[in-house]
Amino acid sequence: MTITDVAKAAGVSRQTVSNTLNSPEVVRDETRKHVLEVIERLGYRANQAARQMRTGRSRLIAIGIEPDGDGISGSWADRFLHSLSETAAQEGYRILLYTAADDRSEIATYEDLLGAYQPDAFVLTGTHHDDLRASWLLERGLPFVAFGRPWSDLPDARHPWVDVDGAAGTEAATRHLLATGHRHIGFIGWPPGSGVGDDRREGWARTLSSPGVQRAVEDGIAAGESAARDLLGTEPEVTALVCASDSLALGALQAREPDRPVAVIGFDDTPAARAVGLTSVHQPLGEAAAACVELLARALESPDAGPPSAHVLLSPSLTIRQSA
Amino acid sequence: MTITDVAKAAGVSRQTVSNTLNSPEVVRDETRKHVLEVIERLGYRANQAARQMRTGRSRLIAIGIEPDGDGISGSWADRFLHSLSETAAQEGYRILLYTAADDRSEIATYEDLLGAYQPDAFVLTGTHHDDLRASWLLERGLPFVAFGRPWSDLPDARHPWVDVDGAAGTEAATRHLLATGHRHIGFIGWPPGSGVGDDRREGWARTLSSPGVQRAVEDGIAAGESAARDLLGTEPEVTALVCASDSLALGALQAREPDRPVAVIGFDDTPAARAVGLTSVHQPLGEAAAACVELLARALESPDAGPPSAHVLLSPSLTIRQSA
Repeated sequence: MTITDVAKAAGVSRQTVSNTLNSPEVVRDETRKHVLEVIERLGYRANQAARQMRTGRSRLIAIGIEPDGDGISGSWADRFLHSLSETAAQEGYRILLYTAADDRSEIATYEDLLGAYQPDAFVLTGTHHDDLRASWLLERGLPFVAFGRPWSDLPDARHPWVDVDGAAGTEAATRHLLATGHRHIGFIGWPPGSGVGDDRREGWARTLSSPGVQRAVEDGIAAGESAARDLLGTEPEVTALVCASDSLALGALQAREPDRPVAVIGFDDTPAARAVGLTSVHQPLGEAAAACVELLARALESPDAGPPSAHVLLSPSLTIRQSA
Repeated sequence: MTITDVAKAAGVSRQTVSNTLNSPEVVRDETRKHVLEVIERLGYRANQAARQMRTGRSRLIAIGIEPDGDGISGSWADRFLHSLSETAAQEGYRILLYTAADDRSEIATYEDLLGAYQPDAFVLTGTHHDDLRASWLLERGLPFVAFGRPWSDLPDARHPWVDVDGAAGTEAATRHLLATGHRHIGFIGWPPGSGVGDDRREGWARTLSSPGVQRAVEDGIAAGESAARDLLGTEPEVTALVCASDSLALGALQAREPDRPVAVIGFDDTPAARAVGLTSVHQPLGEAAAACVELLARALESPDAGPPSAHVLLSPSLTIRQSA
């Protein structure tokens, strides 16, 4: 399908077709309408590329997916992406997917995408302290929303974000354990310094009336198992554990001795938690993705409203199963 | 960034810019080169849309994701998508993601995508008998590759596909059980009629020297548990079960009585399998996604080579854990 085909079918010159697409204001209304009708009839292909040239809008939202790690804690991506694709389509956008190993390679990918596909907006996931990606996008005035709040309290960290209140989740988990009679509730989390991990630790800590015992390890089943074994071995009073992830919690389940039925609660309500009957904090991922699309759509419809700082903090819920 | 900006910066008329983009053959070489340089310098945005208009190539590959069901058997999508995005990027393509509930709504989405984004090719997942999507794409000569073989033996079912040899997987599982001393090995699968399910049943059946016992249920942990309970209850000789999915296998694990340690093998090597120590058939999803990209890239580079019927059948492996 070339401009020549369209010109022939419309009975006009190639110049008129070109003008209709690229300089519509120089073509008479009636002629332009006729040419556009022919373009539609012959197929949209040229039409969309032309529309994009005119409007500078691609109707694409780009999002990166991280390597899936152990596939347990990372399995939120499936559910988030599904809802993101679905709600974006309802607003007239599609999802452009890419992978990136770290901030710097993700920024290189932004450059590439902006050159080749012109996404209208980006969704950032896995936000962290001093997030280079957010600064880069903010500097260039590119629309984006973060799934995850800006953990750095910098003046330029003002951008739309959607997050789940992790502290509220571990607070709910701890309250559930207190209500079912536990008095000594430990915590297995990640090393201090990660926004997400510190937030989840905080919810547990603030719910106890006196300081609880805790261990901090990198994420993973094996790490969770040895941390739980160590904690339970040195703290005989502990009867329950709140964990910062389902991976850690699955490890903690394996650390239990037959004669000491310690209650365990995970975080993320992953398929693995469902499979083994692990009580876990459930994140409303569908709602979160829909909120991301809504904030983006709003920013894209009114680009001149200034840097939008709207945000949505969703409450997680506790899915209670056999483990606690 | 409009054509007027480019014209000003290049010191040429808007008409010349428009011609450079849309009718390059009518512009003097030197002028065209100069205008393109200015376009590049000012930003690629107009350039790519124009390139797409000229070449009819979007460098987008579209793929649909299904609702994640119980999130266990469906969790292959994460790993497949990651590898697909990564290998596609290496070939200069990006992934356009959409959701679709069934064949008909997926075809409606094809129409929409072709109108609005012009993907160069599609990746089909979840192929099945009488796949309307494959026929629709074949009729229109649209490039695609299926992850999953064409299960219908129709003359028009010739298209590139990548699949994992499911029968080889359940054969490996059954052989492993025979080698570890089991003589009565049952099968928990899906109702006959699904290509994937029948293939997995076949590998088990053909490895046994005499007909084995089996149950067929819809996928899911609860269904797997009751099917396994029923089979084990009526077949006291059975000491091992091969299952068509990890969901069924997780159910079978729960159906075991403490005094009868039945060996269980699942299929898909999902994170849930890893979490509970379930031996499972592992699909090489990264390789499969890379093979999809390779077949598509080949078809897109030589579109006139006729309907390509290249296919890749990958062998799964058995990941051995505690359950068998």
